[in-house]
Amino acid sequence: MTELFDRHRPMLEAAASALRTRGYWTPFAEVPSGKIYGEHAREEGLASYESLLNKPFEIAGHPETARLGAELSPFGPALGITYPAAAPGALIAAGEAARPALAAAGIEARIGVCLEALARLNAMSFLMANAVMHTTGQAFAMAFQAGGPHAQDRALEAVAMAWAEMTRFAAEARWEKPQGKAAPIVLEKHWRVVPVGVSLAIGCNTFPTWNSYSGIFASLATGNPVIVKPHPAAILPLALTVRVLRAVLVEAGLPADAVLLAVDAPGAEITKDLATDPAVKLIDYTGSGAFGDWLRAHARQAQLFTEETGVNSVVIAGSDDFAGLCANLAFSLALYSGQMCTAPQNIYVPAGGIETDQGPKSFDEVAAGIAAAIDALLADPARAEGVLGRLANPATRARLDAARGLGRVLRESSGEGRLASPLLLAVDGEDPVSGAECFGPIAFVVSVPDADAGIARAADLAREKGAITAALWDTDEARIARAIEAFMAAGVNLSINLSGAIFVNQSAGFSDFHVTGANPAGTASLTDTAFVTPRFRRVMWRRPAA
Amino acid sequence: MTELFDRHRPMLEAAASALRTRGYWTPFAEVPSGKIYGEHAREEGLASYESLLNKPFEIAGHPETARLGAELSPFGPALGITYPAAAPGALIAAGEAARPALAAAGIEARIGVCLEALARLNAMSFLMANAVMHTTGQAFAMAFQAGGPHAQDRALEAVAMAWAEMTRFAAEARWEKPQGKAAPIVLEKHWRVVPVGVSLAIGCNTFPTWNSYSGIFASLATGNPVIVKPHPAAILPLALTVRVLRAVLVEAGLPADAVLLAVDAPGAEITKDLATDPAVKLIDYTGSGAFGDWLRAHARQAQLFTEETGVNSVVIAGSDDFAGLCANLAFSLALYSGQMCTAPQNIYVPAGGIETDQGPKSFDEVAAGIAAAIDALLADPARAEGVLGRLANPATRARLDAARGLGRVLRESSGEGRLASPLLLAVDGEDPVSGAECFGPIAFVVSVPDADAGIARAADLAREKGAITAALWDTDEARIARAIEAFMAAGVNLSINLSGAIFVNQSAGFSDFHVTGANPAGTASLTDTAFVTPRFRRVMWRRPAA
Repeated sequence: MTELFDRHRPMLEAAASALRTRGYWTPFAEVPSGKIYGEHAREEGLASYESLLNKPFEIAGHPETARLGAELSPFGPALGITYPAAAPGALIAAGEAARPALAAAGIEARIGVCLEALARLNAMSFLMANAVMHTTGQAFAMAFQAGGPHAQDRALEAVAMAWAEMTRFAAEARWEKPQGKAAPIVLEKHWRVVPVGVSLAIGCNTFPTWNSYSGIFASLATGNPVIVKPHPAAILPLALTVRVLRAVLVEAGLPADAVLLAVDAPGAEITKDLATDPAVKLIDYTGSGAFGDWLRAHARQAQLFTEETGVNSVVIAGSDDFAGLCANLAFSLALYSGQMCTAPQNIYVPAGGIETDQGPKSFDEVAAGIAAAIDALLADPARAEGVLGRLANPATRARLDAARGLGRVLRESSGEGRLASPLLLAVDGEDPVSGAECFGPIAFVVSVPDADAGIARAADLAREKGAITAALWDTDEARIARAIEAFMAAGVNLSINLSGAIFVNQSAGFSDFHVTGANPAGTASLTDTAFVTPRFRRVMWRRPAA
Repeated sequence: MTELFDRHRPMLEAAASALRTRGYWTPFAEVPSGKIYGEHAREEGLASYESLLNKPFEIAGHPETARLGAELSPFGPALGITYPAAAPGALIAAGEAARPALAAAGIEARIGVCLEALARLNAMSFLMANAVMHTTGQAFAMAFQAGGPHAQDRALEAVAMAWAEMTRFAAEARWEKPQGKAAPIVLEKHWRVVPVGVSLAIGCNTFPTWNSYSGIFASLATGNPVIVKPHPAAILPLALTVRVLRAVLVEAGLPADAVLLAVDAPGAEITKDLATDPAVKLIDYTGSGAFGDWLRAHARQAQLFTEETGVNSVVIAGSDDFAGLCANLAFSLALYSGQMCTAPQNIYVPAGGIETDQGPKSFDEVAAGIAAAIDALLADPARAEGVLGRLANPATRARLDAARGLGRVLRESSGEGRLASPLLLAVDGEDPVSGAECFGPIAFVVSVPDADAGIARAADLAREKGAITAALWDTDEARIARAIEAFMAAGVNLSINLSGAIFVNQSAGFSDFHVTGANPAGTASLTDTAFVTPRFRRVMWRRPAA
């Protein structure tokens, strides 16, 4: 039962070490290169994807009373794939039935299954890239990275964290208490890791694997059966994942139903039924703050791990590389049409302008610099498509079209239908429009009295409405130090003076804790200790030593 | 600011190591000996206690708008001590005001304060013993151990766990990402420990220090101001603790109001106001399941750590040391008149009797053996008082008096008023009377069809109603193995074949996790990682490396 564990143990130990030191590390290459993934991996991945279209997706032995699935690629065609579907109660019962064997399997058997599944998922990253691309609207390069190796990083991080924590304390001990001149009392003690129950992973439309893998793998590693509930528009990436996990489970002699797929149809979602079932003890959720509130109010039998709505801010206080600032920020605004949870929305600029290496820049000149950098980034249509991808959801197009009236247009959004470049609007700091999330390729350049006011406003907004990222460009080290204090106190990660190929949107596995849990944008941090500890308990038996 | 940390660092590191290996270890001697605590420590402790009686208890600089306190020793006299009292809002405001400085102090400064306070509390263990004795009714020896060194163990355990976890990941890192032939991207990253907010510790009547120290010290170590809310009948032990902590805080240049005392009067409790204040983010609570349910329903802004109502079971399936079994169990039943959260209540015995080293014993013979062992233990009146102590609460006497009719009396309770030895009742397994907590010196010998049925019933009861301990006496190793599986799955710690001077009631710091969190008797385990991780968050700032 520990053959898989032994096989992948070097990777596990390296991951656990990387978690502690938090430098750059990954075992999963992010470059979609034939040299790494195999000479024909790209073509084979595409062919594998196409072979799945327009037919039933088979998952051996999965509960099935219906077939559901109506995914439409944001790039055009319907996928035409149907998936095995079953009632919430049947899925819960199947998970419950798998629970004792999964718990009894022990730590190394479960960790081994998780690691082997990750190795297989990594090898199929080109197939996964196509699946993610055509369910999320991400351009291919991003779908490969975020849907494949970067998601696998997050999964491995969770597995390594779970392993480190489950083995943190001795599994057995000899407890010998002196009794003065009498013989000591000697007990043998043994501790068992006891999983807490069925786990539910509620996926999102935009990052079906990246945002769900941490929870799925953390729960499975700690012995909890996982019901994977994909967004109805982005089923395939998680269906592929579930199929791989079930296959490895069976090969390891464990019940396939330790991982289940919960497919539903838009308008007939089964999420609430699953989330409130008394058997469900853990819920990982990525999505709106409104549904997060619903879960908090109703799914009170479960421990919740969430990533929710937030408003990410940028403060531009000064720069000794104005062109680099504009280019860097332009990419962050344009990438995947602003649909990343890490994308900036509010850009605070002093009304009186800033100092730069190009001399003083007025508010409008700063805004114009950003707008021009976006234009330059997207000037080549092919490159533009590779950056923007597509809007995952038609509602985002409607929101974008309605947003033009919210401020003074600094840059028009271009593109039609699912293709949309950033809309840039100037608004006053007192205007409440910038005080809430406006999801999609919409950004506000917000005038504030001075840079410190911008820092205060951004930090306050993070504290009140949540934020996953914050960015600052500044040359005044004293003010940078004040900003650090303000954003740390507001519980939001801060990036300072980024330029070149590192962007505020980026959150690296094994180094960046994604979401802090310290503001309303989420309760879970990927992956800290608190992400794994509630998923199991320790129970002891002790007796006099033999 | 780190002088205190440096001074106590060897103890801290030894504690952290003990937590991992979980063998016997403690820096705080449990023997109330003049050789350890000073030749005149006993007399000085008593004199210190007596000097506190019948006057106002002063806490320098503490918020105070009234004086409250009406403690009555279960051994007789009124304490006559009044304590500074303030409205909940004033206490919250004081804690909030202390919050930034406590957070800014950093890890080592806070840990140093906690360790220095523990050293001082240890030195005053004889005073604390008298304070605990006369607020809880514990006999002196127990009050010394449980109120002093054993409580200090639990505090140190929490401090060491908090320290280990706050320093688990690198506080800063150089993140260097290769870029093929181009220069690597190099970021410097810094992580800050950010405390979550005001913490509330709700104490209990029976173990004011032991049950509250873990939460108080875990929250303080992780940077959260702590409002200590004692049970109105057991204020003095926590008032002494708060006074020591505030003195050390001030000496370390930190705000005294990082630790506050919230005194109230019976019938005018301020617990609910404090618990539901939006500023309160952490609550440690020991008490009834009913109030635990209230907190879960109403204090939803806070993370709850609880120890609650449970029903502890014993299964007697067989023994090769029947006399030792009876003597061991008798002590567990009699100690502090069954008022320990770890005391057994239900003793499952096969209706057809068991095999022992003394030959077969019928159900009645087993019961008689236990009853006789209790009689023998308590035959000497002085020793009986030293074992039983006093009933902390008059309601326990009323419950005891009413309990006689619940079953066939196997052993009468002796003693009057606050002095009470165990009442032993025979009941049938089908009788629902043994299905709920009956707090105090009341135990049921429950007839079951066979030992496996007893194991199943005890495990089921733990799962449904909660349990903190379980004990089994058996000689059949196959059945012992089955029992281990049953109790592990029910989430309750199991002690097997105890004899001599180790009792099911005992839970040792640094080795036994007290309460599993895996059944309704509590959500927190003393002290696992999950006990400290929700008390702080990590927030990062990053920038290109210089």
